[in-house]
Amino acid sequence: MSSRPTIHQVAKAAGVSISSVSRALNGNTSNPEMVAKVRAAVKQVGYVPSAVAQSLKTQQTGQIAFAMEDIGNAAYLAMVREIQPRLREDGYRLLLHATAADVQDEIDVLESLAQKYVDGLILCPIRVTDRHIEALRSPAVPVVVIGQLPDHVGVDNVRTDSRQGARLAVEHLYAGGARRIAFVNGPADTVPGHARYAGYREGLRACGLEVDELLVEVGDFQVAAGQAATERILARTDVDAVFGANDLIALGAMHALRSAGRSIPGDVQVAGMDDTTLAETSFPPLTSVSLGSRERGGIAAEMLLARLHGGTEPAQRVTVPPSLTVRQSTVEVSE
Amino acid sequence: MSSRPTIHQVAKAAGVSISSVSRALNGNTSNPEMVAKVRAAVKQVGYVPSAVAQSLKTQQTGQIAFAMEDIGNAAYLAMVREIQPRLREDGYRLLLHATAADVQDEIDVLESLAQKYVDGLILCPIRVTDRHIEALRSPAVPVVVIGQLPDHVGVDNVRTDSRQGARLAVEHLYAGGARRIAFVNGPADTVPGHARYAGYREGLRACGLEVDELLVEVGDFQVAAGQAATERILARTDVDAVFGANDLIALGAMHALRSAGRSIPGDVQVAGMDDTTLAETSFPPLTSVSLGSRERGGIAAEMLLARLHGGTEPAQRVTVPPSLTVRQSTVEVSE
Repeated sequence: MSSRPTIHQVAKAAGVSISSVSRALNGNTSNPEMVAKVRAAVKQVGYVPSAVAQSLKTQQTGQIAFAMEDIGNAAYLAMVREIQPRLREDGYRLLLHATAADVQDEIDVLESLAQKYVDGLILCPIRVTDRHIEALRSPAVPVVVIGQLPDHVGVDNVRTDSRQGARLAVEHLYAGGARRIAFVNGPADTVPGHARYAGYREGLRACGLEVDELLVEVGDFQVAAGQAATERILARTDVDAVFGANDLIALGAMHALRSAGRSIPGDVQVAGMDDTTLAETSFPPLTSVSLGSRERGGIAAEMLLARLHGGTEPAQRVTVPPSLTVRQSTVEVSE
Repeated sequence: MSSRPTIHQVAKAAGVSISSVSRALNGNTSNPEMVAKVRAAVKQVGYVPSAVAQSLKTQQTGQIAFAMEDIGNAAYLAMVREIQPRLREDGYRLLLHATAADVQDEIDVLESLAQKYVDGLILCPIRVTDRHIEALRSPAVPVVVIGQLPDHVGVDNVRTDSRQGARLAVEHLYAGGARRIAFVNGPADTVPGHARYAGYREGLRACGLEVDELLVEVGDFQVAAGQAATERILARTDVDAVFGANDLIALGAMHALRSAGRSIPGDVQVAGMDDTTLAETSFPPLTSVSLGSRERGGIAAEMLLARLHGGTEPAQRVTVPPSLTVRQSTVEVSE
C-alpha cells in the first residue's frame, strides 16, 4: 500500500465527504467555507496537487453502492445500519440498489460499474448464476459479495451458514417439546431457500424426527406469504411448532395461528430467522436465528475499504457463524 | 417536447435499462444478445445514431436517485415501492440515499448532482433550510421534492397535509370516547414534527378539549423512543388514548401499554400515522392516518419523468389529502 496521502485522508481531515473534496479542489462548489476547510486539510496531510488531477481523472466519486434484493427486508437494513457509518467515517457516501432479486438487474449493476458512478460495490445476490460469475470476473471497481459463492470465484466474500442456523432453530423447538415442526420456506430455488430447507431436514434428523412433507410449505420471504402458507398447513395437519425461513414469514405464521385461536408458545411455538428488529417488536417477541447481518455488513465494509486503500492481497473469505436469540415465542428449557 | 426518438424509447422497446442501451451502443458490454436487442430497438423506434453520441456526451446514466431520511422508515419504503416500478417501465434504475436527516448530507447529494451520476433526483428533506433552497435554485439535473417547501421555491413538489391528518386522528379518538389523548411526537424542529403537533392541538380544540402538556412527549420517529416516551407519560398522568406521530412511535406506545397491563383498545386506544405495512401486521392491527405515501411517490415519479422527457412547463405543486384507516387499535363508532 502506497504511503502517498490519498483523497480520503483529505476528506477525513476536513471532516467532509470525498465528493466534497473533489468539488472543492475542482472549483465546483459555491461554498467558500468548504473550500477553505478542504485546502487546510490538503496542507495538513500533505496531499500532492498532481494527485488531485489524477484522482479526478480516474473519476473518484466518493460513492459506494450496496445492492440487495429488497430494502424492505430488515436483514438488509441491519447491514446498511452497519455499512453506512463505517463508510462515512472514511468519507464515502452509500447508495442503495434494490434489485428485487432480478438476475438481469444484478448483472446490470455489475456491468454499469464501468460507468464509474461509484468507487466500489457490496453485492448480496440471492441466486448466483453463471452470468454473475462472468460479471464478477473483472469488475471495473472493487466488489465484495455478501452471501454464498462457488469456491473458485476470486472475489472478497462474507457469508454465514444459514443451514446450520436452521438446524439450531429446529433443535431448539424440539428441546421445547415440539414434535410436529412445520417449515415455511421462501423460494426453494434461491441460495437462502435451499440452505434453510437443508438445515431444517438436518435438524429433524438430528432430533430423530422424520421429514413429513405435509409440514412444509413454500411462499416468498414476506409476511403475507408466511400467513397464507401457515393457513394451508393448519388446514391439512397438526403442528406444535412453526419455523419460518425468515422473520417476516414467522410473523405471518403468528398471525395465522392467532386467527386460528392457537396460543403462542403454549399451543404452537414459533421461530424465525435473521433476528431483525421485527423479532424484537413483534407480539410475542419472536425467537430468531441470528445470521450476524450487522457483523457481515461491517466485515464487508472493511474488506471494501481495504481494497479502496490499495490492498492487493488475494480475495478474502470470512464466515460468520449463526446463533440463536431466544424470546417469548418458544419454550426455553434450562438444562 | 421534441418528437425525436429518445434513448428511453429505445430502452423501452428493447425491454432493458437506459444504461444497458448506452453500454450496448458504446461497445461497452460483453453481452452480444443485449447488443442485438438494442440494435433492433434502435431500428424500430428510428433512433438517430448521432443522437446516441449526444446522449453519451451529456452523460445520460439511466439512473435516478431517491434521497430520504431513513430507509428503515416504512413510509419511505412505500414510496420506493411505487417509484421504482414506474421508473423501471421507462428504463430507469433507482438509487437510494439514506441521509439520516443530516442537512449537510442532503446538500451534498444536491451539489453532487453536478457529477451527473444520475439523470434526476427525488428528494424528501425533513427540514428545509436556506442552504436547501440555495442548492435547489439551479440543480444540475431535474429535481422533485416530496414534502413541504416555501411557496417561492420553483421546484416540482408533492406534499400532503399531515397537520390535517393529525387532526383526523384526534377527532377519531375523541369520537371513540377518549378524553385524555396523549401525543408522542418526533423531533418538534422537523417539518413533520411541527405540523403533526399543530394538528394535534387543532384536533383537541375542535373537540373542545384543552391542551395538557403532561400528555405530550417528544422522542425520535422510532419504536424504542415511542415506548420510552409513553412510559414517561404513564408514570405521571392518566390517558385513554395515545396518538403516535408515526406508526413506529405508535407501535412503541402499544408495547409500553401492554407492559403496563393496559388493554388496547379497551383501556387505551392507539393511533399512528403513515399507514405503513407495520400498522397492518401489528397486534392489534393499528389505526393509522394515511398520508398517501404510495400516491405521493407515484406522482413524484411521474413529475420527474415528465421533466426527463423534456417538459418545460412551470414547476408543479400537488397536495395529496390525508385519510384515516381504522383498524382494531381504536374504537369505531358508527354514526
